[in-house]
Amino acid sequence: MVSQIPETMKAVVFHGPFDVQVEDRATPKIQKPDDVILKVHYSGLCGTDLHAYRGHIKGPVGTIVGHEFLGAVAEKGDAVTGFDVGDLVLSSFTIQCGECWYCKHGYTGQCRLTNTFGKIGLDGGQAEYVRIPHAQNTIIKLPEQEVTAAAQDASVYVLMADIFITGYYGVKKIMDFLKIPAAKGFAAQSFKDVTILQIGAGPVGLCALRSLRYFGFTRVVVVDSIPTRLAEAERLGAVATVNFKTDPDGVKHYIEQKLDGLGFDAVLEVVGASSALKTAFDSVRANGFISSLGMGHEPLPFDALQCYLKNINISFGRCHGWALFAEALEIFETMKDDFKHFIDHKARLTDAREAFDLFDKHKVGKVVFDLTNGA
Amino acid sequence: MVSQIPETMKAVVFHGPFDVQVEDRATPKIQKPDDVILKVHYSGLCGTDLHAYRGHIKGPVGTIVGHEFLGAVAEKGDAVTGFDVGDLVLSSFTIQCGECWYCKHGYTGQCRLTNTFGKIGLDGGQAEYVRIPHAQNTIIKLPEQEVTAAAQDASVYVLMADIFITGYYGVKKIMDFLKIPAAKGFAAQSFKDVTILQIGAGPVGLCALRSLRYFGFTRVVVVDSIPTRLAEAERLGAVATVNFKTDPDGVKHYIEQKLDGLGFDAVLEVVGASSALKTAFDSVRANGFISSLGMGHEPLPFDALQCYLKNINISFGRCHGWALFAEALEIFETMKDDFKHFIDHKARLTDAREAFDLFDKHKVGKVVFDLTNGA
Repeated sequence: MVSQIPETMKAVVFHGPFDVQVEDRATPKIQKPDDVILKVHYSGLCGTDLHAYRGHIKGPVGTIVGHEFLGAVAEKGDAVTGFDVGDLVLSSFTIQCGECWYCKHGYTGQCRLTNTFGKIGLDGGQAEYVRIPHAQNTIIKLPEQEVTAAAQDASVYVLMADIFITGYYGVKKIMDFLKIPAAKGFAAQSFKDVTILQIGAGPVGLCALRSLRYFGFTRVVVVDSIPTRLAEAERLGAVATVNFKTDPDGVKHYIEQKLDGLGFDAVLEVVGASSALKTAFDSVRANGFISSLGMGHEPLPFDALQCYLKNINISFGRCHGWALFAEALEIFETMKDDFKHFIDHKARLTDAREAFDLFDKHKVGKVVFDLTNGA
Repeated sequence: MVSQIPETMKAVVFHGPFDVQVEDRATPKIQKPDDVILKVHYSGLCGTDLHAYRGHIKGPVGTIVGHEFLGAVAEKGDAVTGFDVGDLVLSSFTIQCGECWYCKHGYTGQCRLTNTFGKIGLDGGQAEYVRIPHAQNTIIKLPEQEVTAAAQDASVYVLMADIFITGYYGVKKIMDFLKIPAAKGFAAQSFKDVTILQIGAGPVGLCALRSLRYFGFTRVVVVDSIPTRLAEAERLGAVATVNFKTDPDGVKHYIEQKLDGLGFDAVLEVVGASSALKTAFDSVRANGFISSLGMGHEPLPFDALQCYLKNINISFGRCHGWALFAEALEIFETMKDDFKHFIDHKARLTDAREAFDLFDKHKVGKVVFDLTNGA
């Protein structure tokens, strides 16, 4: 069944700091044989959308916002195979060519043609329709199509597009490091013996924590400054939590009292601020590992000699979401019920201005635009 | 046969910048049950000895210099097993307790009691005798004892004590990283396909290069500024060399012409200077690995955002020499003939002042004191 695609649609367009507008736009059309036009069902408002909204970074004026979305294939180019019109699909938050060296080696976040939906040159998914370039390297079918469609509550999958996959990537890097043969002691150690400090318990951090627990890490200490986030971290299985505002020496004391003064085997840093990286560096044991997911904008809070003396290992960077998409989706399926309540504000797309304002002012946690009954 | 140990001995003592003196010292005695007294046969002068000699770092005034040495067991404490008086042994450049968390997990360079021979509190091996604390975690028997003794040319083993093991450690970290499952492409790739940039071709760098070649890495490009070092790197199998003084854009051009503009899969940094780390960062491909062996004293020449955008992975620090000693010695045995000519100046211990001066002025490459016929 091919639904009729209208000529125009509603879309949320970025115009400048604190200025997004709901506009009528021409509905996107197939431009290349590997394009798909997606009819959007749910579209999330991500914390990173606030960077431009608040003017912290230069925003893509005139571009449709949004990189977390899912929906149904409305139209597809001639080269697209494996998808039918009507299929429910989830989009990665980035596009990737699938052909370059980086794509072929699993580093899709470094694809030479990559772009993020909602950035300059690539309209995003806070709209009734969105064009997906390189569709076969960007969308994936949702599991259990009929059940998902019937349940009318596939909104949780917006968390998978960017937030879950990013946290998952940070966790995978820790597991990869722990398997390094040079870390002799760990060969005989199970993940449950590994001590991890997680800095940041926003949505990405909480998804990462849930993944850590999934893989059997039981000794995860979580740091944040927001009590509700720390309560959520406890619910998801953190062995301890530290509010760095009310208990600035909490991590230090934990290391002294519980870790024989050594420090954590690994630190998952999900903030990006220099202060977070400083806590990571000070809290990891010598020869330990820092998995840094945060996008930093400040100098590194340690120098070459400190790194040398501590035998530190650090891995930085944005997740290679598409390379991990299929395996992460399988795992997400098993735990998605734990995340549903993260979405505490569903709105119509036409109420986007109010939703941005509420989100910016921390009055709501996670916003999802529900387009299943129109914009 | 227990040789009579004299009451006094000759030793090279650090007194201040450009001031080492050959003195008569009391011969060390067993202090603890796990001590060994070693009669020194060969003792090397290491490039790091020059740091204090030149006044770049505060030196250990009054301490006997030297952390590269081998010799025969002259006396042993009651708790020492597996060694007999007369055994030819090689010492690690550091001592380690063997009992702490770091020792038990293969990170002996971070042992809580570690010290380096020739530093404050631990007299070194530029002497006729040296006391080895924690001997069973510090010395190892030389292979083929009789052959080695007869050949009268075991001096090459001074390279194993610190220089070879340090280079080897840097190489091992690269191999560990390449085995990381997340680096999907490499699972099916052999080391010969991996491109490596090695920054620094002093003795540690050349030993590292030889180890890289041993493990099958064929695409190693070496950077230095000294033509004789670069010639030696070519002899040891570098696929290309770059003199950064005469050809400052050489690495960049190599990347453009030979690596499709991507950069190297891994960089082995054996210098420590900020400029070397900058070259490493600029030359490694996104998601690549920097194995940094150099002891830096400057700020890191990259910031958090650059690290994020490049998905960089970095491992810093001093080698865990003892943890790798036995396996490295086996490999060193197979290639030691390639290193013999590194030692271009053998001297008597009593000529130490002249030897330091020649070494400081780059008039000789590697100095070894030969004590097999006395000091």
